[in-house]
Parts: sequence; structure tokens; C-alpha cells
Amino acid sequence: MQVDKIICHCRQLLTLSGSRAPRTGTAMSDLGLIPDGALAIRDGRIEAVGETAEILARYSTDEVIQARDSVVLPGFVDCHTHPVFVHTREDEFAQRLAGKSYVEIAKSGGGIRSTIATTRAADEDQLYELARKRIQRMIGQGTTTLEAKSGYGLDTESELKQLRVIDRLAHDLPIRIVPTFMGAHEFPAEYKDDHPAYIDILCDEMLPAVAEQGIAQFCDIFTEAHVFSIGESRRVLNCAREHGLRLKMHADEIEPIGGAELAAELECVSADHLGAASDAGIEALRKAGVIPVLLPATLFSLRSKSYARGREMIDRGLPVAIATDYNPGSCNCDSLPLTMSIACLQMGLNPAEALCASTVNAAHALGLAGDVGSLEPGKSADFTIWDIPSLNFLPYHLGSSHLTGVFSRGNRIWGTEL
Amino acid sequence: MQVDKIICHCRQLLTLSGSRAPRTGTAMSDLGLIPDGALAIRDGRIEAVGETAEILARYSTDEVIQARDSVVLPGFVDCHTHPVFVHTREDEFAQRLAGKSYVEIAKSGGGIRSTIATTRAADEDQLYELARKRIQRMIGQGTTTLEAKSGYGLDTESELKQLRVIDRLAHDLPIRIVPTFMGAHEFPAEYKDDHPAYIDILCDEMLPAVAEQGIAQFCDIFTEAHVFSIGESRRVLNCAREHGLRLKMHADEIEPIGGAELAAELECVSADHLGAASDAGIEALRKAGVIPVLLPATLFSLRSKSYARGREMIDRGLPVAIATDYNPGSCNCDSLPLTMSIACLQMGLNPAEALCASTVNAAHALGLAGDVGSLEPGKSADFTIWDIPSLNFLPYHLGSSHLTGVFSRGNRIWGTEL
Repeated sequence: MQVDKIICHCRQLLTLSGSRAPRTGTAMSDLGLIPDGALAIRDGRIEAVGETAEILARYSTDEVIQARDSVVLPGFVDCHTHPVFVHTREDEFAQRLAGKSYVEIAKSGGGIRSTIATTRAADEDQLYELARKRIQRMIGQGTTTLEAKSGYGLDTESELKQLRVIDRLAHDLPIRIVPTFMGAHEFPAEYKDDHPAYIDILCDEMLPAVAEQGIAQFCDIFTEAHVFSIGESRRVLNCAREHGLRLKMHADEIEPIGGAELAAELECVSADHLGAASDAGIEALRKAGVIPVLLPATLFSLRSKSYARGREMIDRGLPVAIATDYNPGSCNCDSLPLTMSIACLQMGLNPAEALCASTVNAAHALGLAGDVGSLEPGKSADFTIWDIPSLNFLPYHLGSSHLTGVFSRGNRIWGTEL
Repeated sequence: MQVDKIICHCRQLLTLSGSRAPRTGTAMSDLGLIPDGALAIRDGRIEAVGETAEILARYSTDEVIQARDSVVLPGFVDCHTHPVFVHTREDEFAQRLAGKSYVEIAKSGGGIRSTIATTRAADEDQLYELARKRIQRMIGQGTTTLEAKSGYGLDTESELKQLRVIDRLAHDLPIRIVPTFMGAHEFPAEYKDDHPAYIDILCDEMLPAVAEQGIAQFCDIFTEAHVFSIGESRRVLNCAREHGLRLKMHADEIEPIGGAELAAELECVSADHLGAASDAGIEALRKAGVIPVLLPATLFSLRSKSYARGREMIDRGLPVAIATDYNPGSCNCDSLPLTMSIACLQMGLNPAEALCASTVNAAHALGLAGDVGSLEPGKSADFTIWDIPSLNFLPYHLGSSHLTGVFSRGNRIWGTEL
């Protein structure tokens, strides 16, 4: 059979095949490793995977890419990011190190409200250009599918503006970008003393507009003490579901207020952060089949003494995913390889689990596991090529990147010719 | 005056000027920032630093490099690395995550003794090629001066072989490389039950040969419980001094056995690691003017619950330096920017202190502060160019690199044309 392209002589091809369901337990360590592996690609999709000799015998092509001595992985799925904003907040990083609290920083004009102010003031093209550069850097770290949230507008027009930016990025960039509406990221200053009024705007104005324009697939909310309560979150998420959006939550990041339990009750696709989730909440997530999306780089950036219980969640049978949480405040990390290192070192995942968490299970956290997250016939030919001896090298090494090629839908989108 | 090259319109030129002595206390936060800065370069050295208008008025040149919108820093000085070995040990990383102890790993053939076995067996060209690639990656992270240790040979010929490799690298690569003899890195297996015999070889055979061949500037030793005792270390280091070598120590990394105190007694140039150094040891270092070289990425890679007390040492007036500790076992980190992030987040340094620790004070830890570590007239024109808004961005951001140019002795050695 004629195909468009064959990638062959991958020293190790890690397929992670057999990933229809989110992976749990020891299945998270099953790499589906093919030594001297090859991929046959047709119309941007994987036609076949196998050993090089077998693939070359069964398929013919005009384009053979030799990946000798390289490890080939599924492209990373970064299932939790906030890339649409104006200014980075590195000076707050220094202020936190000098001992200033988040409240002090907020009072002196910093914090998320400063991001909201400049995002509201920015025009769409400026936001687009800034986010595009950031996402190109993520691609250069191996990301081929990205979830991107709004949530720095907090008024109807500014939220729609962010979502339009994400929509343009999804159209223009050569990777998959999944848009998430997060008007419930914080209460804007003008409603800080009138939460019910902002909830009304979310439910009566923003969500109908987002649904009508069809520019978000998910709705997310920051459910946390002093932000959106359990009751407020339930109302917003139920409304989002009525408008056809799938549900995500920032749940129990700092205090265990029952966010995980609510995510289970509402059967959210994912519950994210979970640094303080209770035992009951974790068990509820497991029973409800909610993906726990852990964000180890955020806890690292915030100098947290404790981390979400990733090791324990895997041991209890939850299909853990990890993501960068790229944002201007708490975590300016654009690299899933570094996030994997932190997940291993600070949460106790093993390298294979960390890979599964940032590919297969992350794809499930976006409802995209039919298309991406593993290298199997029928799926999109999204993969990355690494000059490393084995997967273990990826989280073991810190610093320079050994990535040499990124392919999306079968096309090279980053890296040099092999 | 005619100069060879002018780098101008640096949005921020961080000179760290005034660095004749190691920096302590609040002086570690003094960046010597020149807005719209410029460097005039002649014969590979800095002729002048100043504002762009002033430099362009005083100097003429045929080569002007516009660094508009960039931050320019002194090249990094990585003052503690072990880059000469054969195989990386990523599988041990996975074994440690799976709960295996260092002793179990060593018993199953891993650990430093596996590195020693392959390093002994390797020919010099193989070691050279492997180390060269690693150091080129370090250059790509902004390092322009590097200390490189032997210590994976542990017999006279194998140690000399490693030092010859370092000597060739110093000759061939466009950065400064400082060679350190570390035959006392561990007791080789054949002397594990006869420490005095190995000490005799170190003192009577290796050190005289190293001195005669003139291929090391420093002698380092791993002073630690179950490795080299205080008494053994004193004998080796005194012998090294008699042979004209300057002294460094791996001191009190894991247990406080008095390594810092010995470093002070012997007036070592630096005492490195210090994760478990006692209060008295820290005070002794301060009084003796020994540079404490902290290795935050190592503690991170080893999943340490506690870190060397960097914040406290600075507050007590010690001239803290940081380094990557790049090696195949405990820390495969080749990036000083990431090391700065970890120093900030896990040791509480501020970004300016982390920069001082990886430039000025690191240069003092190599006795090279007359030449490198800051951007001042007369020093080598070693600098890096960054597409970042300010220094704070460097440790704040995690993942992709914003480095765009590396210059050594006035020549671009990495990066694209601006």
C-alpha cells in the first residue's frame, strides 16, 4: 500500500497504544515500546505502526524519514494553560521571594487583577501576537495539542475577545487547540462585593453568548475559598452544561472545600490542581471517572511545601494527567518535559507514568483521545523525535532540550531535517 | 578610539561591576544596571561599558551589534561540573523513583562505580567527543566559563586520561575551562577495604603526576561519612597544596562531619554542596573567606527534603556561589538558568543574588574574578543576550530558553545574528 510518509528506524517507538480508555494503575507504565520502530502516515493520520522491517515490507512511499538513534513519542497534550494575556509578572516572582504575600502584591496593583486590566485594554491583534509566540515556544518543547482558557477578561466582551484570539490561534497554528471559557476565573473588582450579580452575568450573558458563537468546548471555574463557592460553582457549571459545554474545574487547589466532590457529582471531564483534595474527594473522582489533572510546575513555582498526591492517586486507580498550567502569575512554565521532571521528583510518578499523564490521559482530559495522545492506526500523526537513549532520560535530564523534531498531522512543524 | 566591536542599545546591560572581591550581603543584589547600555570591545576584552550614546560618542568601530530590547548579562560561570564520563544513568533515576536505595542500585551494578568502570574502559577520543557535546549544550544555556573535574578514573592513568580530555576541551572549545583533579571522588572497588593504600596512591603517585604534567589547577575531594574522612581529606589536600594545586572540597553534602570546618582550616578556595553544614562550619567558612558553592539542582534531582541554607548564608554575610553540578548520577542538569530558578524557589535567593552567585561569586570560586564574572573594562568580553523583559524573568520562567546570543572573548560562539 502507498502511504505519504514513513518514519523508520526509530530506536524506540513509544506508541502507548491501546488507549481508548483513560489509563490507570500499572497500565500507566505500559509504553507500547517497539524497538527499531516505524510509523506509516497517510492523509495526516497513522496508517500503521510496527517494526521497521514489517512497515517497509507492507507500505511504499516517496518520503522516508530516518529516525535512527532517536526515541519517538506521541506529541504532548498540554491540557491546562492560560496563554492569552499581555504582560508577564516576573516582578511579582521577585516580590514573593522577598516575602511579600499574594494579598500584599494584589493590594499594590499586582496579581490576577493586573492581568485582567491589561487584557481588557489590549486589542485582539496584540493578544493574538503575544499568545502566538508563547504557543510556538510550547511547540518547540514538544506540545502538539493544547487547551487554552479565557478568564482574564471577566466581562462579556473581553472574554469573547480572548476566545476569538484562541479561535484564530486554533485556525492559524499547526497544532490542535481546545478552547475553554473561564469567565469564572475570579470575581472582577467591580463585582467583588456583589458575587450574585457576576454569577448572573456569567449565566445570563456570557454563557449564552459563548454558546451562540460556538467558540468554546469547555467551561472551567476556579472553585476555591474566597473565589467561587461550591454553590456558585454548581450553578455556573450546570448552566454551562445546559449550553452544551463540557465541564472542567480548578478544584481544591489550596483548601479542601469540596471541589473534587462537586467535580464528581457533576461528572466533569477533569478536576484540576487538587493540591488539597480530601480522601473522599479523590475517591469520588475515581468513582465518577473524572480525570485528575495535576499541575506540578505550579506548586514548584509557588514554593509549595506539599504537592497534589499524584503517586497515591495512581496507586488508588485514578487516571492522572499532568499539564503545565502556563500562565503569567503562578506558573510561567511552557515545557511538559520539565513538568514531567517535577511530577517525578516532587509527586513520585515514574517516567512512564509521567509520559502517559502528559499524552494519553491528558487527551482524555480534553475528550480527544480518539484523535491524539498515542500512536495508533487512525489517530492523528502527532509525534516528537528526541535525541535521547530512552524515555527515562527525559525527566532525568534538566536544562537543555534534546527534542529534534515535532510533527503534527504528519507534517514537520518544528525542528531541523534529520 | 577605534574598537573591534560595539554592542549597543541593550535595553538593560547588567554589568555587576565592582567585583574585585567576592560579593556579600546586599551587594549580591547590586546588578550595576545600565539602561540603553553598550559595550565596547577590543582584542576580546571589554574596553568600556556605559550608556549607548556615551559609548558611541567615545568609540568608533566597523562592527555594531544592535541588542535592542534585549537584556545583556555576564556569561555564566559554572564552577562545579563533572562532564567527562561515558554513559548517562537515567535508568537509576527511574529505579530511585521506584524506591530503590543508592546502596541497592550500587549493589546491582549501578552508581558511581558503573561510571568509573566505563570511564576507565573508554578511550580518550570517545570521552572527548561525549564531553564536547555536553559542554556545547552548556554553552547553549549561556555558560562561558566552566570548571570540569576528573574523578571517574580513580587510578593514575584513568585520572590523567580524564584531565587530558579536559585539557583538549579547554584548548578546542571557545570558552574558558578550568581543570580540577578529583582522584579522591570515591574509593575504587579494589581499595574499598584498604583506604590507606589508595590515599598513598593519591599522594605519592597521582598528585605528583598531575603536578608534573601541569594539567590541573584545583584539587577537589569528596569529604563525607563513608567516603573520605576529615583526616584523610586533610592529608590529601595538604599534599595537593604542596604540589601547587588550589583546593576545593565536596563538604558536608549529606552529613555534618566537619567538612566546612576543614575547608576553613585549609583556606580552600571553595567548599561545595554544604547541604548539612553546621552553624559552626558556616561561620568558619565566612571567617576564612571560603566561597560556599551551593548546588540546588542536585538536591532537587535527589528529591531532598531540605536544601543548603543559601538564604541564611547570604544573610550571614557569606559570598554564596551556585553551580549545576552536572554529572551522570545525582544531577544531569546543564543549565544555570534552571539552577537559578531552583536556587530562588528552594533556597530563597532573589533573582539578583542568583545571578551574582552564578557569575561574580562563581568566578571567585575559580580564582578567575580578574577575568570573568562581570562586565568591566579589562575583563574578557564574555556575555549573553536574552529576549526577556528583565532579569527577574530568567528564574521566573520555566522551560524554553530565551537566550539569543552567547559571546566569549568578544566572539559570538552561539546563537543567531541579531
